Amino acid sequence: MPLVNRQITLANRPVGMPKETDFRLVEAPIPRPGAGEALVQALYLSLDTATRVRMNGPSANARPVEVGDVVTGEVVGRVLESNDPRMERDDIVEGMLGWQEYAVAPAKTLRKIDARTFPITLSLNVLGVPGLTAYFGLLEICHPSPGETVVISGASGAIGSLVGQIARIKRCRSVGITSSDEKVRLLTSELGFDAGVNYRQTDDLHSKLKEVCPNGIDVYFDNVGGDTTDTVIRLINTHARVGVCGQSSQYNAEQPEMGPRWLRQLILRQARVEGFQLQQFAPRFEEGLRQLSGWLRDNRLRYHEEIVEGLPQAPEAFVDLLRGRHAGKLMVKMEE
Amino acid sequence: MPLVNRQITLANRPVGMPKETDFRLVEAPIPRPGAGEALVQALYLSLDTATRVRMNGPSANARPVEVGDVVTGEVVGRVLESNDPRMERDDIVEGMLGWQEYAVAPAKTLRKIDARTFPITLSLNVLGVPGLTAYFGLLEICHPSPGETVVISGASGAIGSLVGQIARIKRCRSVGITSSDEKVRLLTSELGFDAGVNYRQTDDLHSKLKEVCPNGIDVYFDNVGGDTTDTVIRLINTHARVGVCGQSSQYNAEQPEMGPRWLRQLILRQARVEGFQLQQFAPRFEEGLRQLSGWLRDNRLRYHEEIVEGLPQAPEAFVDLLRGRHAGKLMVKMEE
Repeated sequence: MPLVNRQITLANRPVGMPKETDFRLVEAPIPRPGAGEALVQALYLSLDTATRVRMNGPSANARPVEVGDVVTGEVVGRVLESNDPRMERDDIVEGMLGWQEYAVAPAKTLRKIDARTFPITLSLNVLGVPGLTAYFGLLEICHPSPGETVVISGASGAIGSLVGQIARIKRCRSVGITSSDEKVRLLTSELGFDAGVNYRQTDDLHSKLKEVCPNGIDVYFDNVGGDTTDTVIRLINTHARVGVCGQSSQYNAEQPEMGPRWLRQLILRQARVEGFQLQQFAPRFEEGLRQLSGWLRDNRLRYHEEIVEGLPQAPEAFVDLLRGRHAGKLMVKMEE
Repeated sequence: MPLVNRQITLANRPVGMPKETDFRLVEAPIPRPGAGEALVQALYLSLDTATRVRMNGPSANARPVEVGDVVTGEVVGRVLESNDPRMERDDIVEGMLGWQEYAVAPAKTLRKIDARTFPITLSLNVLGVPGLTAYFGLLEICHPSPGETVVISGASGAIGSLVGQIARIKRCRSVGITSSDEKVRLLTSELGFDAGVNYRQTDDLHSKLKEVCPNGIDVYFDNVGGDTTDTVIRLINTHARVGVCGQSSQYNAEQPEMGPRWLRQLILRQARVEGFQLQQFAPRFEEGLRQLSGWLRDNRLRYHEEIVEGLPQAPEAFVDLLRGRHAGKLMVKMEE
């Protein structure tokens, strides 16, 4: 049994883009599980841009990360000790256990993972939050029909890279907007997108999008917001559907950013913009996971993961993620 | 038979708020109806803020009013001559006949009005475009449920004043935002709104709205946009629905106005914003008119109309309308 639990806590509330010094590596005792709880050793930690928002302090909704708190994060790990009949030692589980090597949680908040069929990292990716978010967000919020054009911002991210592929499975044209030529290649050569646009490589995203969306845009799955979304909105077709999943371009903003008003465009296009959160589909997670597993088995859904080694690397990797330096699902592999 | 048709044409494209000199009163010959057409003498002309947008020239969607064109407008009038079996002399009809005293139109584009049951001006109001827009926009786009709070911007306008009353019929709390204390009184004393807010009378619309919407905002019917909408969006509840009917605060803008970005609020609230146009409900107009007539007969729906006399008054009245100096349905009564 190890004696020390390494954790990463928030040292200061970041101002703008976080710095590594906004985080602190600390040591704490290994916690002991109480009744109904399990002690879990983290194997992989998921890094997510949306965690940045929680660092801004109290907000309308998401539970904030307070200064001194262990940073919030999803983990897949191994049960070391369980005081609940639902799980036993050596079970593989997934849960919101934070940026730390060991955590105790009520067993009922943990999801047991079948480690025999797929790599366990997939429980943080296609067979977890990103996969379910892509699945329900695209199908239930955006209702794509065969032959329609689906545009995805933040397309090379964990969610976006799956949205584009599910759009293809649904016989749509799938166009990804991303931030480097290398990511465009990942989308089109490895993940089967019909087209990709590097928004940093063009000073006329509008024309570039028109070129790769000759029939206009029927569905827009937005992970980014800001100028990118302003541009897409000007190209949507009648009855277009916009699903708002994330607004990563705004997460570092201290004040609301200003942008051109475009609600009139929604009238002209009889179009809809809808924000959503994965949790609203909780009753249907089983169905989603079944479908996503099927597509994985049939090789219709591919994934890209990037892994950094060791908890101390988490802050740097997280900042890199916010700067757009990663693609697919970014995880930290914990040291054994 | 009269010899001259007075018309109002667009003299120049208005820059910002239109001036009376942007319009010209001209005389033209009375047109002759061809096969399938009818000649109509206008009795009442509807003035509408949305007409302002058409004066800006070619846009994505609405047919523009070109310089020299008769200004677009809805009219209720009397058939003087018909070359179509669907109508005959002295029928009362409604159609998009423009700012002029006489017009010829294909009979199939005209709607016959039953002049015995209700005043004919209602075909430009509750039993016409404003009524149907309020009915379908509120019920089919915003889906209000009993007990919910419905907020309406531009609440004293032809559409807004009906939306608030239909919300009440559907057992919602109905709150109108408008631009004068007199209009607030109209909404609450005469039209049965639960509350009204004069946005020009407060420098803190946010607090004022919180006060009159103690349970938050479930539905927002937007006729105005701009700062008002930014404020409302910060107060919406989870699963709120926003119907975007008009954006009158933006119609005079030469360039897109800038405003704070708030798409993240839609994610936090799992909320939806949808633009719509009346035409999308065309197959259900009969149903809508039947329901609206019923409510009128039962005195559950009231209306407010303001009438100016004579076509030459149309430009001044239209500018006043854009300045917020009218309430309810504004019409021009034509000289006989």
